[in-house]
Amino acid sequence: MSSLLVTNIGQLVSWDADQPIREKAAVVLEGGRVAWVGSSAVTPLADERIDVDGATVVPGFVDSHTHLVFGGDRAEEFEARLAGKPYAAGGIRTTVAATRAMPTPQLRVRATRLAAEALHSGTTTLEIKSGYGLTVADELRSLEVAATLTAHRTFLGAHVVPEGSDAASYLQLVKGPMLDAVAGVASAIDAFCEEGAFDESQCREVLAAGAARGLAVHVHANQLRPGPGAQLAASLGALSADHCTHVTDDDITALRDAGVVAVLVPAAEFSTRSAYAPARALADSGVTVALATDCNPGTSFTTSMGFVIALACRELGLSPLEALRAATTGGAAALGQSDLGHLRVGAHGDLLVLDAPSYVHLAYRPGVDLVRHVIRRGEVVR
Amino acid sequence: MSSLLVTNIGQLVSWDADQPIREKAAVVLEGGRVAWVGSSAVTPLADERIDVDGATVVPGFVDSHTHLVFGGDRAEEFEARLAGKPYAAGGIRTTVAATRAMPTPQLRVRATRLAAEALHSGTTTLEIKSGYGLTVADELRSLEVAATLTAHRTFLGAHVVPEGSDAASYLQLVKGPMLDAVAGVASAIDAFCEEGAFDESQCREVLAAGAARGLAVHVHANQLRPGPGAQLAASLGALSADHCTHVTDDDITALRDAGVVAVLVPAAEFSTRSAYAPARALADSGVTVALATDCNPGTSFTTSMGFVIALACRELGLSPLEALRAATTGGAAALGQSDLGHLRVGAHGDLLVLDAPSYVHLAYRPGVDLVRHVIRRGEVVR
Repeated sequence: MSSLLVTNIGQLVSWDADQPIREKAAVVLEGGRVAWVGSSAVTPLADERIDVDGATVVPGFVDSHTHLVFGGDRAEEFEARLAGKPYAAGGIRTTVAATRAMPTPQLRVRATRLAAEALHSGTTTLEIKSGYGLTVADELRSLEVAATLTAHRTFLGAHVVPEGSDAASYLQLVKGPMLDAVAGVASAIDAFCEEGAFDESQCREVLAAGAARGLAVHVHANQLRPGPGAQLAASLGALSADHCTHVTDDDITALRDAGVVAVLVPAAEFSTRSAYAPARALADSGVTVALATDCNPGTSFTTSMGFVIALACRELGLSPLEALRAATTGGAAALGQSDLGHLRVGAHGDLLVLDAPSYVHLAYRPGVDLVRHVIRRGEVVR
Repeated sequence: MSSLLVTNIGQLVSWDADQPIREKAAVVLEGGRVAWVGSSAVTPLADERIDVDGATVVPGFVDSHTHLVFGGDRAEEFEARLAGKPYAAGGIRTTVAATRAMPTPQLRVRATRLAAEALHSGTTTLEIKSGYGLTVADELRSLEVAATLTAHRTFLGAHVVPEGSDAASYLQLVKGPMLDAVAGVASAIDAFCEEGAFDESQCREVLAAGAARGLAVHVHANQLRPGPGAQLAASLGALSADHCTHVTDDDITALRDAGVVAVLVPAAEFSTRSAYAPARALADSGVTVALATDCNPGTSFTTSMGFVIALACRELGLSPLEALRAATTGGAAALGQSDLGHLRVGAHGDLLVLDAPSYVHLAYRPGVDLVRHVIRRGEVVR
């Protein structure tokens, strides 16, 4: 089991309980995990050694909400939106048609390329949802493509009702044969609880069926207007309620009391020209906040967690420290994984060497690629 | 004189008058200039050949407003601003102190690194201002550092009144000995017309003195509140009025009638949490709009024109086409240079090969590095 010493770290963000940020630090990775954290004045034995010359080291980003497997793009819809046309959930059907029409190898090449782009920009853990197939075969192959890229695969058959179907019979399909087909490949289930997608009782049915098969639960909640999504997530004990753009004080209380993570996706609000989620109210009331890209061709075609952090500081009122926490441990909480998103001993050896004197530069230098190196599971991948 | 054929271009944005965007195109660069533009079905002779495999090609970005030569950073001020402290012009003095204290080789290394970062992200032409020296020697060495990086060097002695000086005697210095010292190195002059910096008559004096020495004129105008800057720029026949965040309808009319370019810097408005400039009103009334980064440690620490384009679409109401035009020919107009920012025959051979099927992706994929190759003056530099 080979070990790697990363030393001469100017600023280390480890999220250690006693010392979340330390200066002049070093880290040893072994067997893909953090084996030791200490001062760079100490030189523990290791097989290999990287001197980062005073750079900043932070945990790799955990992007807990993406839709990376799809055909086509929606640049025209994006342009129309800039010209004033509002976003509606129905646009998803455009991508469903393009995804169904695309051969699997091409779907895989495209998703792999986006995953590589995400990794290059610092995302060491990625969640991927299905939801552009909406047939048994197309949902299954979407999740199988996702399975080549990540352990975090979410079945989102309940994304929209596909063209030519009615809601009732489509839901029977989703919670019956479709769930049967994907249950061995997916690790979680999600549903889009929104006008134009699915209502509360429909989502509850689907999500309960998934939970009964041992899948973790996420909910697309309160994206386009106030609604029952957040409270549904709370009542189901979901891992996360995602979007939360239009949550009320009662929704926030329910999320906090149920320990549901609020996954905020400001890049989607940027792209759809929506108002931004009330992150300050969520954080101040004690809800765990995660940041994610929501990477998808309709409402947020970015893989950049750095961009999301900068937006979160400008538009969500998070401090750079809160934003980085939300992009790392927050994301890990949304995936229900406690050994990710931090650099305490035992955590996955996922870290970023930043070309900056402080993590603050992630927000201070928007649009700039500050990632000098990416280490994932103890391996240098950039 | 070696020539380079760039062919198999899927979409070429040349800003040709008859055909600003064409498909299946090719370009020949020779002697650092565009020598031929045509169909990729034709194969003109050239010494070297690059097949870009259907990628999009656009002119290199022209960033017409930066402050790249400085010491220190202002990450703490940035964090304080996120916590609610408003931006004020006085923060400039922090950077003045750090710049004066920094040896010239280190200033040069830092500026060179930022210029390289800008080039890597697609900026093939860069303007650099002084204004963090504010002594004869420090302004001169700032412009000498800029001279190692660009032909577009702007003397901004009238940035703020330095600590320990009074405005009247400092202005005598700026338009006298300081202007004498820098006139051979600078190509343009600028002044910060704003409460807390210089008033209209002070700016007019300094700018007129520079114009009398043959320097082109720019004005930092109407950044923090309404004021006389834009009208001053118009009355002086300046190349550009920069910022224009708080311009009135009368200001807009004056800019248009005088042919002054409005250089908009939305990344500064992003960083200072300011309102955004009325770009739509400016463009609709016929003012030439340029987009620039305003890269500086106080209010906009980004070199990314891609980020600026994405912001301009989200926040300024520009279409992706208008934003790209403003980031290329708009910038060239702000620098008074007609052979830049487009790819018509005779233009500088500055172009970007984008990893995207259309220039629209520059706005559609915010935060993502879409630049696959950068060609500057006919040479492949990335």
